[in-house]
Amino acid sequence: MSEQSPALSFSNEATASPVENLLQRIVASIRTGTLDALHDEIVTLHPADLGDLLEGLSRDERSTVLRTFGEELAAEVLIEVEGVVLEDVLEHLDDQVIADNIDELNSDDAIDLLEDLDEEAKQKILASLPAAKRWAAEDALRYPESSTGRLMAREFVTVPADWNVGQTIDFLRAEPDLPDDFYDIYLVDEAYRPIGSVSVSHVLRTRRQEPLAGVANGDLRLFSPMLDQEELAHTFRQYGFSSAPVTDEENGRLLGVVTLDDIVHVIDEEAEDDLMRLVGLGKESDINRSSLQTARNRFIWLTVNLATAVLASMVISLFQGTIQEIVALAVLMPIVASMGGNAGTQTLAVAVRALAMKDLRARKAVQFITREALVGLFNGVGFAVIAFVFSALWFQDLRLGVVIGIAMLVNLVVAGISGTLVPIILDRLKVDPANASAVFLTTITDVVGFLVFLGLAAAFLV
Amino acid sequence: MSEQSPALSFSNEATASPVENLLQRIVASIRTGTLDALHDEIVTLHPADLGDLLEGLSRDERSTVLRTFGEELAAEVLIEVEGVVLEDVLEHLDDQVIADNIDELNSDDAIDLLEDLDEEAKQKILASLPAAKRWAAEDALRYPESSTGRLMAREFVTVPADWNVGQTIDFLRAEPDLPDDFYDIYLVDEAYRPIGSVSVSHVLRTRRQEPLAGVANGDLRLFSPMLDQEELAHTFRQYGFSSAPVTDEENGRLLGVVTLDDIVHVIDEEAEDDLMRLVGLGKESDINRSSLQTARNRFIWLTVNLATAVLASMVISLFQGTIQEIVALAVLMPIVASMGGNAGTQTLAVAVRALAMKDLRARKAVQFITREALVGLFNGVGFAVIAFVFSALWFQDLRLGVVIGIAMLVNLVVAGISGTLVPIILDRLKVDPANASAVFLTTITDVVGFLVFLGLAAAFLV
Repeated sequence: MSEQSPALSFSNEATASPVENLLQRIVASIRTGTLDALHDEIVTLHPADLGDLLEGLSRDERSTVLRTFGEELAAEVLIEVEGVVLEDVLEHLDDQVIADNIDELNSDDAIDLLEDLDEEAKQKILASLPAAKRWAAEDALRYPESSTGRLMAREFVTVPADWNVGQTIDFLRAEPDLPDDFYDIYLVDEAYRPIGSVSVSHVLRTRRQEPLAGVANGDLRLFSPMLDQEELAHTFRQYGFSSAPVTDEENGRLLGVVTLDDIVHVIDEEAEDDLMRLVGLGKESDINRSSLQTARNRFIWLTVNLATAVLASMVISLFQGTIQEIVALAVLMPIVASMGGNAGTQTLAVAVRALAMKDLRARKAVQFITREALVGLFNGVGFAVIAFVFSALWFQDLRLGVVIGIAMLVNLVVAGISGTLVPIILDRLKVDPANASAVFLTTITDVVGFLVFLGLAAAFLV
Repeated sequence: MSEQSPALSFSNEATASPVENLLQRIVASIRTGTLDALHDEIVTLHPADLGDLLEGLSRDERSTVLRTFGEELAAEVLIEVEGVVLEDVLEHLDDQVIADNIDELNSDDAIDLLEDLDEEAKQKILASLPAAKRWAAEDALRYPESSTGRLMAREFVTVPADWNVGQTIDFLRAEPDLPDDFYDIYLVDEAYRPIGSVSVSHVLRTRRQEPLAGVANGDLRLFSPMLDQEELAHTFRQYGFSSAPVTDEENGRLLGVVTLDDIVHVIDEEAEDDLMRLVGLGKESDINRSSLQTARNRFIWLTVNLATAVLASMVISLFQGTIQEIVALAVLMPIVASMGGNAGTQTLAVAVRALAMKDLRARKAVQFITREALVGLFNGVGFAVIAFVFSALWFQDLRLGVVIGIAMLVNLVVAGISGTLVPIILDRLKVDPANASAVFLTTITDVVGFLVFLGLAAAFLV
């Protein structure tokens, strides 16, 4: 091995992934009917790159590639694609091929794949799985979506708690049916309850005759399969786990193990969720979905937005007479509303993130709201002065400047307070604050902005 | 160990963290001067919980706790707090205590801590570190922020590439100076270049006489210390690494190793960054920062927003005469702008996320822009009809309804196109699309919304 000259491939170039170049050649070779020439390159791709490749092709091109090489592609590509592309891949593979491939996956990956399928496809695949695997998959699907029970792997390593290091190593060397890779070994009692864990590197560093319990972590945190995956991810972060045991709530038996690589997926998913929900997009951000489906998906949120915009324009309509007299009000009023909306959204983003990371505890809430109100006050004073000077000069009207200045100040303070209060209240009501905060917030800042600005104008300028 | 009865603590309750309850008792005991009674509970806390505790206290309460127990608190609490709270903790600890504590940390954690300090504090701590540690820290700080060179640990396990499993196990059992925990062992040649890696669980499962190279992964991806941490995280995700070797670009020597738990921090940081930058908040989201600092931090972005809002109101001012004649225009115009802004932001969020996850490749871009234009068209037609009916009824004016309908349609299509084009262009220009897209986008939808709506009204209604 040491003769082998290592190809030093720096991953700066790897940023331009191997897929990008191959994609272009595939498209060209499909046109010239010479796709077979790329056979070796395609079937030896890493499954993750193969997934990217399939996602990078158009629907027709994907079909051609799948028809040509379908049966030879690695099982793991199934867990590397999702949504529309996954449906295409499944359509081109024989059910038995799919079942065989799923059988090769770890149970957590198999579930990850199955849960995305529609009911019919799911049942067909389940039926063609070997009994043990089918049982495990059906068991996992019984747990709610995004629960720890769905996430956990049912393949893990346990040894009796009274073994020593030597016995453990001998067992691991003899046992063929182990997960391909694992970080922790769980010590279980006679009732199969986990009572400690030992990291593989500690086993490796300890002499054969030493009892495993001597190097084990006996202060084990146990998790329920019903726990939400986001809560679990938070605990992994907090305590730096590499894996965690999931146990039956009734009898304490070890049911499965969640590993850090699963948690990475959860964190990615939750970050995407938070961002998407903030703009009203629910869970769905598949860029391969059709435009009609996507339009339908966004229609609801835009309707909510329309309703709130109408509310704001009703406020404006109360002051039609005033606007007709001083048309400068129509010119300036969007500035007040826009500044409030933006200041509020800044506060909102900080609050939503702090709530998601559990940094915003009960005791902190009052402190945080006060700070944001003060931030609104400070910036409100600043922008009130700017707005006063600017408007007074533009429209040659000092009193108009005073009115917009006051409206700006009030709206920025309101933005600070509601940007914190809205998500905190939603969180207490067990509604995900990322979900609906933005629409509530901009409605508040629009209505307050228009009302204060036009109201003051009606009272003092006309 | 097996006699020990395991306390089955389900982590559903653990959601209400141990800290919340203790916090209240600490505050009460500070008031009554009986803080000492909580000594045992506080000093035995997990460092992560202790960090949460300190962050949950007010500044004065935190000082009291630090003055009372400062020297006894675990070194690791230093890496569990940040920003203002970290400054408080450092202020209350003797420099030598800090240096001793940092000496106990792994090099990557030590860097993570040092890089957040101001220059003076950093130099003071560096000076009091033992030579080897100081050299490692100074070396790390030479790499740019958010680079792989900052992230990597300088403690890792290497063995000669021609060793067998038995030699490796004997070495690990004899060597006292190893990282506390590790997942992979790196095989190096005579020039200390990594030529393979083997996961610890594979070592454990293989017989002593087998050569390590037989169970090693020889297809090793090497990373430059200059690589951006976000790129590195993407590669970890893509290929499911548990660790990755960082090598010198010139001579290929192994410099450090990045592990999956570091990547979890990177992913969290980047998700927070993307969200914060989308609302113009830069890197900073510390909820413990003072209101004045926070206000200053947000002032710049709000000024940019003010400038774009003024641009939009200049467009409105072009049509003052029209508005004075038909004041309903002032009532309805924010609806057109708001719908465009929201539809554009939805598209933008999907595009920014897809760019961050590298799902939006060159070939996909045209397809994606086309889809979003179509989504805008479909929803544009829908909301054009709604706006037509609604406005025609409200103001009893069919022609006004037609004008707002057309403006709505145009603005939603423009929102779809610019919501994709703006981030894609910024990305090509190597500007982080999360950074400035939102402000560009809403400027476009505001200007287009007002211009089309008021322009059509001026042309056809007056």
